[in-house]
Amino acid sequence: MEAGSSKRPGGRSARVRDAVRQATLAELAEHGYTGLTVERVAERSGVHKTTVYRRWGNVEGLISDALELAKDEPWPIPDTGTVEGDLRGVVQLVRSGFDDPELGPVSSAFVAAAMQNETAARALHQFFVARHEQSAEVVRRAVARGELPDMVDVREVVRVAVAPVYYRLFVAHEPVSERDADRAADAALAAARAGVL
Amino acid sequence: MEAGSSKRPGGRSARVRDAVRQATLAELAEHGYTGLTVERVAERSGVHKTTVYRRWGNVEGLISDALELAKDEPWPIPDTGTVEGDLRGVVQLVRSGFDDPELGPVSSAFVAAAMQNETAARALHQFFVARHEQSAEVVRRAVARGELPDMVDVREVVRVAVAPVYYRLFVAHEPVSERDADRAADAALAAARAGVL
Repeated sequence: MEAGSSKRPGGRSARVRDAVRQATLAELAEHGYTGLTVERVAERSGVHKTTVYRRWGNVEGLISDALELAKDEPWPIPDTGTVEGDLRGVVQLVRSGFDDPELGPVSSAFVAAAMQNETAARALHQFFVARHEQSAEVVRRAVARGELPDMVDVREVVRVAVAPVYYRLFVAHEPVSERDADRAADAALAAARAGVL
Repeated sequence: MEAGSSKRPGGRSARVRDAVRQATLAELAEHGYTGLTVERVAERSGVHKTTVYRRWGNVEGLISDALELAKDEPWPIPDTGTVEGDLRGVVQLVRSGFDDPELGPVSSAFVAAAMQNETAARALHQFFVARHEQSAEVVRRAVARGELPDMVDVREVVRVAVAPVYYRLFVAHEPVSERDADRAADAALAAARAGVL
């Protein structure tokens, strides 16, 4: 969910959108979802408050737009040559992302916002549709290498692999060690090999 | 997380605590976490506002106390005779609980509150420590019946089994079918049998 969107076309409108998005991400990193205000984002982005209100409406609009852009960011899918290594790599990316002092609070704010607001929930859902699709590549490669059965549900393997990390962080409020993350990946892989997923 | 605490000692203080707790649960069911106010809970419980403020402090205190009591509620751990049936039963209990028109919004409010507030997070953590311990009984029975290896991490099997349900509901914002819940239980079981958990 990093900032930066050099791939997107330029033009004033695109620059304004990026400025507002950067400001939204920075404010979320510093103050979290409950501390996010349209006024602060406008001030930080240098975009006039009335423009921000007109184009984004409210904080949920700002969060949804930031998610909309985050969804298109490339994600460094690992390619270690084995499905064990790749799937562990994907889950470790999730774990370390929430551990990151900059990225962690922003990602947590997205999850919190989606729990409180329907618009943010739809945007976060779309983000995860894209994220599951990207991550499923490591499972497709495993099928191509004959490491997993053809019939495996590639997205479900990803869900089951990452779910315990999110469950510890946002539901049970438990720490997540590197070993916990590896075990979650190994568990999903064992289930896929057993033909359950 | 149902209301009712006939097991607890009586006395005025206990009756007041239960009245406030019932009112907190009812308010959460109707208005969710963001709609919860000390005033509404005081009015609904018939307990004076100053008493509620003095004993519970704020909405997070009310939620934490409701969780503190919920943690001691017995949970109908299934006993089907097989670990497949028992573990599927545990995960279906979680799924159907969030589906319940009364219980679902209250449970969701607990998760939402814990994401916004440290006190509620600690209370929810303690709730899940107790819930994992209760649910792990189905895994201990499986070990006793020789269905799973002695070395299995009984609580981790429970975490991995329920995590995909919470992940779909509160992170990816996807529906959870009965089949999804069964698959999550089966995946945890396959991992436990493979010696991964």
